[in-house]
Parts: sequence; structure tokens; C-alpha cells
Amino acid sequence: MQKFSLRYAERARGVMAAAGAHEADIISFGSGDAYPESLPDLGEFAQAAASRFRTETLQYAPRPGLPELREWIARYHAGDGVRVTPEQVAVVNGAKHGLDLVCKLFLEPGETVVVTTPAYMSALGIFRGWQARYLEIGQDGDGMLVDELAERLAALARTGGAIPKLVYDVPEFHNPTGVTLSAARRRALVALAHRYDMLVVEDDPYRRIRFEGEPVAPLVSLDSERVIGLGTFAKLVAPGLRIGWVTASPEILGKMAALKSDGGTCPLTQRIILEYCRAGRLEPRIAEVTKVYASHRDVMLGALARDLPQAQWRVPQGGYYVWARLPDGVSGDRLAAAAARRGVKVLPASEFYATAGPANYVRMAFSYASPAEIIEGVGRLGEAFKEVA
Amino acid sequence: MQKFSLRYAERARGVMAAAGAHEADIISFGSGDAYPESLPDLGEFAQAAASRFRTETLQYAPRPGLPELREWIARYHAGDGVRVTPEQVAVVNGAKHGLDLVCKLFLEPGETVVVTTPAYMSALGIFRGWQARYLEIGQDGDGMLVDELAERLAALARTGGAIPKLVYDVPEFHNPTGVTLSAARRRALVALAHRYDMLVVEDDPYRRIRFEGEPVAPLVSLDSERVIGLGTFAKLVAPGLRIGWVTASPEILGKMAALKSDGGTCPLTQRIILEYCRAGRLEPRIAEVTKVYASHRDVMLGALARDLPQAQWRVPQGGYYVWARLPDGVSGDRLAAAAARRGVKVLPASEFYATAGPANYVRMAFSYASPAEIIEGVGRLGEAFKEVA
Repeated sequence: MQKFSLRYAERARGVMAAAGAHEADIISFGSGDAYPESLPDLGEFAQAAASRFRTETLQYAPRPGLPELREWIARYHAGDGVRVTPEQVAVVNGAKHGLDLVCKLFLEPGETVVVTTPAYMSALGIFRGWQARYLEIGQDGDGMLVDELAERLAALARTGGAIPKLVYDVPEFHNPTGVTLSAARRRALVALAHRYDMLVVEDDPYRRIRFEGEPVAPLVSLDSERVIGLGTFAKLVAPGLRIGWVTASPEILGKMAALKSDGGTCPLTQRIILEYCRAGRLEPRIAEVTKVYASHRDVMLGALARDLPQAQWRVPQGGYYVWARLPDGVSGDRLAAAAARRGVKVLPASEFYATAGPANYVRMAFSYASPAEIIEGVGRLGEAFKEVA
Repeated sequence: MQKFSLRYAERARGVMAAAGAHEADIISFGSGDAYPESLPDLGEFAQAAASRFRTETLQYAPRPGLPELREWIARYHAGDGVRVTPEQVAVVNGAKHGLDLVCKLFLEPGETVVVTTPAYMSALGIFRGWQARYLEIGQDGDGMLVDELAERLAALARTGGAIPKLVYDVPEFHNPTGVTLSAARRRALVALAHRYDMLVVEDDPYRRIRFEGEPVAPLVSLDSERVIGLGTFAKLVAPGLRIGWVTASPEILGKMAALKSDGGTCPLTQRIILEYCRAGRLEPRIAEVTKVYASHRDVMLGALARDLPQAQWRVPQGGYYVWARLPDGVSGDRLAAAAARRGVKVLPASEFYATAGPANYVRMAFSYASPAEIIEGVGRLGEAFKEVA
């Protein structure tokens, strides 16, 4: 059999880190799964979609998604001050699929993507699969250091270096850090995108999972063509549905839909979500999960203060994650390994760097585990810390 | 905004031909949709999957698919004499997605794929998206001319030319020609794959939709590692479910699953199909659709003999399509255009060539239209023929 070239082995390795579901018999603060106890019962909607709507849901579907769902998503965005028409919305198999299509359309091997450091591990896996290079920009409590990006771009322009083609960020409740990009920086970022002819990819899965404070208007609301938006029902309704969307210009979406090699996103699950939303279930659902995850966060932060007081963290005002800083010299990899031996899963900092970065962090998802498991798991993490510190 | 490079514009163009669902207000012999009147009612299974199984179906799923569905598919294959373990089965978003992953893993830009002429248009679109070159091999009533392939490979070996990496075929009820590759040629093809270190991709969606005659053992039954199998529930249950599978070595499947950028195939639809199959519904369903499509074929061939006697065709013993040969000099493109003006959709030969081929054919799907529509549509096609002949 012909050998995998290095290039393709690299492709496979890139995404491997993100593969696989959590194991059932451990306390998982690993991936961003939904809290099992509060998963919605979609039975009636699934029944209707598979039965009453079957001449639509069991046939091949239009590549950009069901027209009615695209209309619903466009209206949903209007609530965030985003003006997009249904023609600017394409349904995809989850936001990651959308990001993959953006790369497939725009990214030549070796071209540069701007990412934060740290950055969302699965996005990095996708970029790696497309053989991207990186321009890595730091973060503080207001998100990506856009001034730093401006300086780096100016230096590249001065020296004739290659200007990046894409900027990728999770501006609202960043994954993994939980910080939110300030309004001023959003404006500055979009201005930079115009100035240097870059596209911004705004990955925005956590926006509605806000526990406190005021949301910041999405980047897409500043420019719905220069900014490509990635949305998903995964964090609002359920991850397993694999329904996300992309907002962009109709021209870009047309080319992107043509690249969907999978025969179109499943119309059955699209219809299930559409009927669920039309029945008025989405807003109460968002209110419920926000309440649940706020209490999970509080339990986790309380447990950390008690059992791992050596760690530091910014209190996340929303989203799914605590990004815990360990004392200098304590490796997140070693802590994650010691925790795994105690049946607790956390993700080490090393998973979240495009190239490299400080090792003394771990990401802890508070979404999936129950409050009792969170208390037990953080207790074990404290023991693991004593072992490795 | 940065310009699309030619390369990426090409990617988009490649798949575009296959995009889009059929329009509702015309008589469609175009894409291989299911007959709407015989779509199954999956309501009870969808209800159970979304409600009772929701801690599985609404979370992220394992990348290679639900273990129980992989087991079910492995057992299903045993009925065709194919010995694969569940570890040799990976669930994907339809067979086209599987083919895309095969290309992503194995095909470098500019490498060569062996295809029949004509060949399945959507496969060609995917290959084009990966910038493949082609070695095109003719067909007769026994399928791909494997002797011709042997000669071409020997010539390449003699002259130091690049040996193709993949061979792609639909050996059972070929799309579009409807012919089935003979057992002797299947053995010869697998032997060639060994000799020249190629992988064979066996796309096998129509195997069970057989109206007459005996099935030929799948290529995968001859070698389940050298031959990568693509399967789907689209033609057996319903296209809209977007559930297919790949059979290959566990090593290849591991790498392939890691390349699935979409967070795993929807566990909800996987569970719907699994419960449907476990309830014993699949075999009666196959018997029913086979009967329905056999009658559609008979109606179409009868109508063609009456209203388009100038055309010739091989009687398809299964599958979805009639590949109708027009008199020399009559263009399939012109006939398709004239038919479209009369509200009838057929696909011209030109869609089915990797590079070029004889224009005097059209593909007519008999799956979607009702018998009454088939009679009416072929009548109009006969009028269109008079216009262009």
C-alpha cells in the first residue's frame, strides 16, 4: 500500500487531539459536552420532522440549508443587531464544519492565520489540517491584543512579509480563556481587516450563555461581509444535532455550499431544530441552561478556592470553561496526567497553542459534570496538584 | 477582499454541478431522489432516538460512529460475503463524505485516479475539488474494461509514468450506465491493485436494488484492506438521513476519522437508523423499494420504446437509472435543454465525463417520478427529441 506522505500524516495528526467523545466512567471537565440532566426532550419534534415532514426531511436537501431555517437564523441574528438576509446564511454540520469550509475555500497551504494564544484546540486542529502558518497574538482581560496585531501587521507591511489572510477568534467567552473582546477592540479589529484586506472569522457559540454583564455587539454586526460568522445550536440546544451555520456574503456562501461534499446537511435534524424553535422552546431553553451552567461555574470556582487555592483564574461571565493558571513551574500536562490517574479529566494548556506557550494552565469545562461530580473532581484535582507541585 | 485563486475557484466549480435539490414543479428524471410516495415513516424511531436515547444522541458522538451501528453494519456486510470487523467500519455523512475523506487522506494535487468513462458525476466533482488527474477506462456490458486498464498500467510502468493511486468504480449497477462488473473482472481488478500498489474504492449504493439476476460478490469481499468500501442508507432507507459508511483497515479508518472536521456524524440520525434496522424494518423496506423501482423502470422503458424509439439502452437489472443512447450527432446537452423547456429534467452525458466523451447520451433516473409522471415526461422528451434531432 502506498505510504501516507508526511503531509497527510500531519493532516491526520492535527485533528486527532480533538477526536473522540468523553469516557463514561470518569469525572470529565474535558470537552464541552452538555449537562446530561438538562438535555431537552426533542421527541415530539423529531417525530413530526420524520413523519409529517418526511417528503422534505428524507430527501436530499438544498446545499445551503432549508430555506425556512435560514430565514429563522437571519431573524435570530437581528436580535443581536446583526443585519443578514437569509441569503447570507448557510447551514452546515456544526461550526467546525463551517470553519473547515472557510479554510477549504480561502487557505492555501503555508498561508497565515491570525490566532490568539491560547486558542480553541479544535480550530487549531482544522488549521493544521490545511497546513496553515500562524501569527499568534496575546490576550488580556479584554481579549485579543489588537494593538499588538496592528504592530505586527505594520511590521510585515514594512518588510514585505506575507499579510495573513484570515483572523480567527472566539470573541465572546473565549475558548479557553473565557474573556470577552471589548467593543473598542472589535472596531479596531474590523478596521485592521479592511486596511490589510483580511477576513475575520468570528466563532460565536457561547454568546447567549451569559451569566452576568452585558453582551458586546458581535463583530458581524460591524461588517457582515468582511466578517464571516460561525454559529451553532450545539451549546444552546444540543451538541449531537450537528447543526451550525455560517454567515457571509452570498457570493462566498455560494462557493462554500458548492464545496460541501456531503450532499447537504441533514434536513431531518434541520427540521427538528426549526420546529423546536418555532414552538417557542429556544428562549426558555437558553434561560435554563444559562442558569444551570452559572450554578456549575459557581460550584467549580468554590471548589477550586477550597481545594486548589494555589491556582488563579478570571471569573468567566459566561460560556463553558475555567482557564486555571497554576503556579509558575507547574506543568498543566503533568497535572492533567495525575488527575487522569484519579479519574478526572482536564485539558492541559499545551492543547491550546498553535506553536507553544506557557505550560502552567489547564482548561476545565463545568458544563458536563454534575455539581456533586464537580466537587468530587476538584477535590481529586487538588490531590493531583500536591503530587505534581 | 482577497481574490479567490484559480485553484480554489476550480475547487468550487468542481462540485457545483452536483449541487442543489430538484425543483418541485417539474418532472424530474434528474438526481437519484427516492420515490416520495414510498418514503418510510420513521416517526416512532425518531421519537425514541430523540427522547429515550437522548443522553447518547444529543451529545458529541465518537468520531468513527456509534459502536452498535458499526457492529450492525459489519453483520449486514457478512450477508454479502464480506468479512469486516466493526473496527473496519466508520460511519460518515453519506458515501460522498466518505469519498471526500479518502481523497483528503490519500490524494495529493495532480495525482491520478482511475475512473470509468462515463463516471458518477458527484464523484468526479469531488476528485476535481482535490485537483486529481484521470486515467479514463471504457466500459462494456460487463463493466469497466479491466484488460484496457492493465494495458495502460503496463505502458505507464514501461515508460516510467506515474501509476495512479486510486481506482474508483460503482461496480454494481454503475452510475450512470447501470452495468455490473463481472466476477472475473473484479478478480482481475483486485490483482492489478496489488500488482501496482493501488487502492480500489468500491462505491456500492445500489447493490440491494436488484430487479433480476444474481448479485456479483463485492470487490471488498476479495480484499477488505486493498479495497475501500463505500456504503450508504440513502438508497435503501432515505437520502435525507445523510448516513453512510466506509470499510477499510482500522489504520486507515483511524486516520480518516481524525480528518472528520465536523465533530462526528450526527448520533441522532445514526440511532434512528439503528432502531429502524433492529426492528426488522430494513429487509421489508428493501423488498418494497425494489418492487417499486422495478415497476418504474418498466414504465420508463415502455414509454421510451413508444415515444423515443430512436434511442437505445441496456435494460438495467437494478439501480436507479437508464443510460439512453441517442442517434449519433444528437447532443445530450441539447436534448436536456429542450426537455427542460418542456418541464422535464434529464442529465446530459457531458456531466459524466472526467474529461470528454460522446455527447449522445442522457441519464434518466426512474426513482423519483411517479409512473404517471414518467409516462408524461417521456412523452415530452420525445417531443423535445423531434426538436433537436
